[in-house]
Amino acid sequence: MATTSGQDIQSLEHILEKMDINNKEYVTKLLYGKNLEKLIIPADILENAEKIDIDLQGYIFKAKSESTRISNIVRVGAVQNQIVLPTTDSVADQILALHNRIKHIIEIAASCEVNILCLQETWTMPFAFCTREKIPWCEFAEHIPNGLTTQFLKKLAKLYKMVIISPILERDEKDVIWNTAVVIDQDGNVMGKCRKNHIPRVSDFNESTYYMEGNTGHPVFDTKYGKIGVNICYCRHHPLSWLIYGLEGAQIVFNPCATVDGLSETMWPIEARNAAIANSYFTVAINRVGTEVFPNEFTSGDGKPAHRELGHFYGSSYISGPDGSRTKGLSRSKDGLLIAEMDLNLCRQVKDAWGFLMTSRLDMYVKKLHELCQPV
Amino acid sequence: MATTSGQDIQSLEHILEKMDINNKEYVTKLLYGKNLEKLIIPADILENAEKIDIDLQGYIFKAKSESTRISNIVRVGAVQNQIVLPTTDSVADQILALHNRIKHIIEIAASCEVNILCLQETWTMPFAFCTREKIPWCEFAEHIPNGLTTQFLKKLAKLYKMVIISPILERDEKDVIWNTAVVIDQDGNVMGKCRKNHIPRVSDFNESTYYMEGNTGHPVFDTKYGKIGVNICYCRHHPLSWLIYGLEGAQIVFNPCATVDGLSETMWPIEARNAAIANSYFTVAINRVGTEVFPNEFTSGDGKPAHRELGHFYGSSYISGPDGSRTKGLSRSKDGLLIAEMDLNLCRQVKDAWGFLMTSRLDMYVKKLHELCQPV
Repeated sequence: MATTSGQDIQSLEHILEKMDINNKEYVTKLLYGKNLEKLIIPADILENAEKIDIDLQGYIFKAKSESTRISNIVRVGAVQNQIVLPTTDSVADQILALHNRIKHIIEIAASCEVNILCLQETWTMPFAFCTREKIPWCEFAEHIPNGLTTQFLKKLAKLYKMVIISPILERDEKDVIWNTAVVIDQDGNVMGKCRKNHIPRVSDFNESTYYMEGNTGHPVFDTKYGKIGVNICYCRHHPLSWLIYGLEGAQIVFNPCATVDGLSETMWPIEARNAAIANSYFTVAINRVGTEVFPNEFTSGDGKPAHRELGHFYGSSYISGPDGSRTKGLSRSKDGLLIAEMDLNLCRQVKDAWGFLMTSRLDMYVKKLHELCQPV
Repeated sequence: MATTSGQDIQSLEHILEKMDINNKEYVTKLLYGKNLEKLIIPADILENAEKIDIDLQGYIFKAKSESTRISNIVRVGAVQNQIVLPTTDSVADQILALHNRIKHIIEIAASCEVNILCLQETWTMPFAFCTREKIPWCEFAEHIPNGLTTQFLKKLAKLYKMVIISPILERDEKDVIWNTAVVIDQDGNVMGKCRKNHIPRVSDFNESTYYMEGNTGHPVFDTKYGKIGVNICYCRHHPLSWLIYGLEGAQIVFNPCATVDGLSETMWPIEARNAAIANSYFTVAINRVGTEVFPNEFTSGDGKPAHRELGHFYGSSYISGPDGSRTKGLSRSKDGLLIAEMDLNLCRQVKDAWGFLMTSRLDMYVKKLHELCQPV
């Protein structure tokens, strides 16, 4: 029997795929909502993906045809990846190595005609917040838009006519640090940014050591390809955060994360999928991959000895539709690019069918929440 | 290959149980959070359950021991059942037959030392709202507490020292009809009631034909065995509804439902479980079972011919813990009693570990929701 942590488990889907069962159709329906059609990816692209060792998967979310609206089809890409260099290398080298790795993955996304691509949380750095050391990790924080990473991605966005969402550690003009997603449009312009609103104080992570609660609200970006929001990592545990993006008109909400097994894996397949259902939009849940080793030992506040490894980031990125269906997950252990071709008309079709917003009685809740918010 | 609807599928768990897989431990962890210990049910009780043909399952949710609080252990029961008599029989006979059936199930729950028991939505009647006929279905609505059903359950509650939640169709003094859960305490007193706040207008069901949006808010009942709320059926699609129960201090929220396959089964395992995670409490999702045939044909607003059958209520009742773990589901096709022994201390322990409420920034959302509520 395999262990229940670490990298030896490829994915739930790998296991289920091998099962000798008569009722696969039913199992698929219950676990994934439906058996989504696979996106056909040309052989040469699959080869390229294999060359750079990424798990490349594609699925299609369809909507019914309508006579007053044309289909609103967009291809979305989600990237999960390991860090490239050891955490002991120089900060500049680590950033450049990740730029180089992501450049290759974005090239593949472009060849798959991806319109909107999202990278994982603080993708330019190891997830070093568990160390509680300021040096050198604060050095990874970059100015937006003047920092290296935003400049780097602006070029790729323009080159490939791709909207790119880039979640990084941000350092503003006053040296306040934020956990921020930058949205770059298909012409290489920065459309805006969204700062993480909810900060974990759980397990290895009190990330308020490094950055502050976001003050940019819940912006929805009306991109050429669709209306998108970005709900960063721990914000996925907050249904109100998902709700506001829905009320603001989002059709796709990206949820770039960094989370390890033993902590959150039980909740992972539930939360972003529930958000898609509750708010009648698509959600894209992205988690980093791999095990990161830090130069100095640190403790985890759990009574166990000091150590230099955080645990295994289990990947398993997936995309959910407003009808509750979802793609399979990417690998638990490999870098990956998950593509979904989605007809955004499905959002309104599900709203018309289920009427969650129409029946939400928001005014009742505003009143009640106001009462419950008073200090006691 | 089995069909994907109807009664031929016993449950997801039956299928997974039979799988020849090496990685069962991992599959269980991902699908159920952990492998919950089974509650040992004495052989004579299991025999009694078999005699009356119910699926009887029991699980244990444990918490860590603390030195300033003793364990707070409660046994909760969830009942799912088919109707007993044909829908063409007299209303009075149908009610009495269901009373008799439920009496037997409650006897078994009592022998398992269940402290709090919840029945399914409008348990005294077929789920006839799809017919849009007022006659005879409105006759099933009963006064609280003077109606037959509340009087019947008050006796059983007192006899077995059991808190009983009884979701019925309510007719008040002014002949306004509501979809209401009555909470009866262990001494047989009615503690109060909670009316369904959100009414579906989906598929076969515009239930506002029969009853109005609840006006009792989100009461939490401080029972002898724990603080409980009742979130009826379609309210499970509304994260704000779950949230208020959490803010009001609920430790267990019951979600009595009636929903059919082809409509909601994709969402069923997600929503109540997500609510348990997001609000750090236990949730008990209960769905009725069976296929109900009505005297007169009706249409479903889907372009298909008129028919007299609604579809299959797929049971699959389950209980989730605040840590994201869940029990297996009851049968898709049989009456059942699902028991969970839970240490309610787990709620606060998960709150301390994850801090979702502490990090919820409610005041920010009150302000935003207030803005978003303005008529446009």
